[in-house]
Amino acid sequence: MEDFRFQNSTDIRFGKHHIDEELHDAVAQFGQNVLLTYGGGSIKKSGLYDRVMKALAGLHVVELSGIAPNPKIDSIREGQKLAKDHDIDVVLSVGGGSVLDASKVIASAKFYDGDAWDLVADRGSQSRANIDQLPVVDILTLSATGSEMNAGSVISNPELNVKLGTYGPKTPAVSFLDPQLTYSVSKWQTAAGSFDIFSHLTEQYFDRSTANDVTAGIIEGMMRSVIKWAPIAIKEPDNYDARANLMWGATMALNGIARSGNANGWTVHPIEHELSAYYDITHGVGLGILTPRWMKRALSAETEGKFVRFGREVWHLTGDNDHEIAEKAIQATYDWIKSLDIPMTLGGVDINTDEKFVEMAQEAVRIGHLDQGGGYVNLTVDDIVALYQASSTVEGFE
Amino acid sequence: MEDFRFQNSTDIRFGKHHIDEELHDAVAQFGQNVLLTYGGGSIKKSGLYDRVMKALAGLHVVELSGIAPNPKIDSIREGQKLAKDHDIDVVLSVGGGSVLDASKVIASAKFYDGDAWDLVADRGSQSRANIDQLPVVDILTLSATGSEMNAGSVISNPELNVKLGTYGPKTPAVSFLDPQLTYSVSKWQTAAGSFDIFSHLTEQYFDRSTANDVTAGIIEGMMRSVIKWAPIAIKEPDNYDARANLMWGATMALNGIARSGNANGWTVHPIEHELSAYYDITHGVGLGILTPRWMKRALSAETEGKFVRFGREVWHLTGDNDHEIAEKAIQATYDWIKSLDIPMTLGGVDINTDEKFVEMAQEAVRIGHLDQGGGYVNLTVDDIVALYQASSTVEGFE
Repeated sequence: MEDFRFQNSTDIRFGKHHIDEELHDAVAQFGQNVLLTYGGGSIKKSGLYDRVMKALAGLHVVELSGIAPNPKIDSIREGQKLAKDHDIDVVLSVGGGSVLDASKVIASAKFYDGDAWDLVADRGSQSRANIDQLPVVDILTLSATGSEMNAGSVISNPELNVKLGTYGPKTPAVSFLDPQLTYSVSKWQTAAGSFDIFSHLTEQYFDRSTANDVTAGIIEGMMRSVIKWAPIAIKEPDNYDARANLMWGATMALNGIARSGNANGWTVHPIEHELSAYYDITHGVGLGILTPRWMKRALSAETEGKFVRFGREVWHLTGDNDHEIAEKAIQATYDWIKSLDIPMTLGGVDINTDEKFVEMAQEAVRIGHLDQGGGYVNLTVDDIVALYQASSTVEGFE
Repeated sequence: MEDFRFQNSTDIRFGKHHIDEELHDAVAQFGQNVLLTYGGGSIKKSGLYDRVMKALAGLHVVELSGIAPNPKIDSIREGQKLAKDHDIDVVLSVGGGSVLDASKVIASAKFYDGDAWDLVADRGSQSRANIDQLPVVDILTLSATGSEMNAGSVISNPELNVKLGTYGPKTPAVSFLDPQLTYSVSKWQTAAGSFDIFSHLTEQYFDRSTANDVTAGIIEGMMRSVIKWAPIAIKEPDNYDARANLMWGATMALNGIARSGNANGWTVHPIEHELSAYYDITHGVGLGILTPRWMKRALSAETEGKFVRFGREVWHLTGDNDHEIAEKAIQATYDWIKSLDIPMTLGGVDINTDEKFVEMAQEAVRIGHLDQGGGYVNLTVDDIVALYQASSTVEGFE
């Protein structure tokens, strides 16, 4: 097990009965000037906007709407200006991971005088570590990114075709997690979000440390929960247990617990981020297409033990033939993703050309240090081009 | 899944390389006046005391030593006086759960003018919620209680034959967890500590909520880790991986994560606390003796599903006969505890009379509300007397 530090102070309010009673005080404890951030009009249609405004009665609320999926740097710049102009004390983010990711960077940008992109482009986030950051309170409406209990954000810069992770020192101050708010999430977004959760777990499970059974066991339990409940949530959108297990699973998958003591190197995320950056596809769907191909590539004599464990503990595979169990586990993963109605090829998300494969692979390698120990197994540009190519066909899986 | 709140701000420094470099600043961030608490002389023999004093150079250090296992109220009273007399800013606890439990109550008692027992006897801990609490920094030397990342303490009052749980509002500010410091823990204490961890997990796993698969899965993973590593730590005291998995497992088992969304009622702990209070036996050993008997009593048509899951996911039992799997899971638990060289009867810890069984059972029921929905299954005084009796023989297990 590796040495580590862990601290996460986010105040979680999970369940049906927190928002109306507690939202006002949770926000007002930080001040009177509130920047309310959200995406499209869905929170107005659902009535959530009215509930929020009622709870905030008496506070000075400034609004920033229109934050898009794969949030763009322009929204951050706009939020930066509003936060400065109105001397904002606290950001209230209502929406999914994209709105929250943007809000966390805006919370830093209030204290930065240059272009907000500087805070993202600086991958070590030193620029953000050295400035203050507003508290962020959030009401989550999508189970996926885990942004509600971590310090990370993924921000896109469309002019540069870049999508980068950036880390504020602070995790959200208070996160309201009401699974009922995800009843209206579409089948497509439920599938994508569920696989995003699963991908966060695989990225941390397949790690280079050894003998960390606490964390491995915790991850296996969370994987089984997503595998069980994602298809149910897709079939029965109002199933509270399904929505609740996905919501808490999303949070727990990426709050630091699942990497404790690991020697992690994320691989599939940087490879997928290029697809999203170049083609603006749904992140979780891109991960779903890439992951089984990456698993096949990562399986070797050296890594077989971890895949066997994955097969036995997560997929309940039995038998004496270890290699067969490892391969069956990858196939089971593929079959499960497909059962969520995620299209299993790049063509299924309208990427029908390989013209950008080399360019994207070069970027993924550069950003993720994937050929220099940055991932679970080393991958070269050629390897990643091959992964994109393998993702263009169902060969080997169907 | 039940509604819940979760927040835990403890700053964990896990591994080999934190203490010497980081201890001074971790303590001094809270002030100059330090109350150093510890137990017997073992930290002097091991050299840890010298390392700590070196790191604290320049700070004003007051010492409170002699804090015993099952910590007694007299130590709290002594600490309260020292904390007031020396205007202590921060408590540094060096030792196992007992020292830490005492330190957390002393941290409150500094701000209380009456007898410190009032802060314990008030089971709702309202008296502590309404006063301040000093920050506690700790260096853990035993993997067991989880006290390093929760707000709880268990304090004994020998005059009253009472052992009670009390909760400060604060969890420790900083916990240094170096598995190497547990190399010198005896086989007996390693076994007892490991079963304490396992018991914390079973108390939270067997809960009345349904469909909380995230938490159930997390617990199952942690259980498998304890089952695997406890026997190794007993056989090879210097095995870093074994000590590390037990240490992080102990912390994670009782930091709030494993009860998230559950409808918990602890049962075996209040029943064991009477044994410790009356006979001063090792807590984890008492739990080890009682738990398999309690499981047999708790197994019914209504609870069978959970025991079957326990058998399949934790003990890897297979087959179609659910009832058989449930029973085998309980037997496997018994066999594993026995393999740790825990004596499996009350006679093994020198309790050779049943004269106090009724009195202890009455106390356990009263304190744990065990006949009124306080536990996983309701237990009457007669039920608990029967559990103590069943714990006096190996009948049914060997």
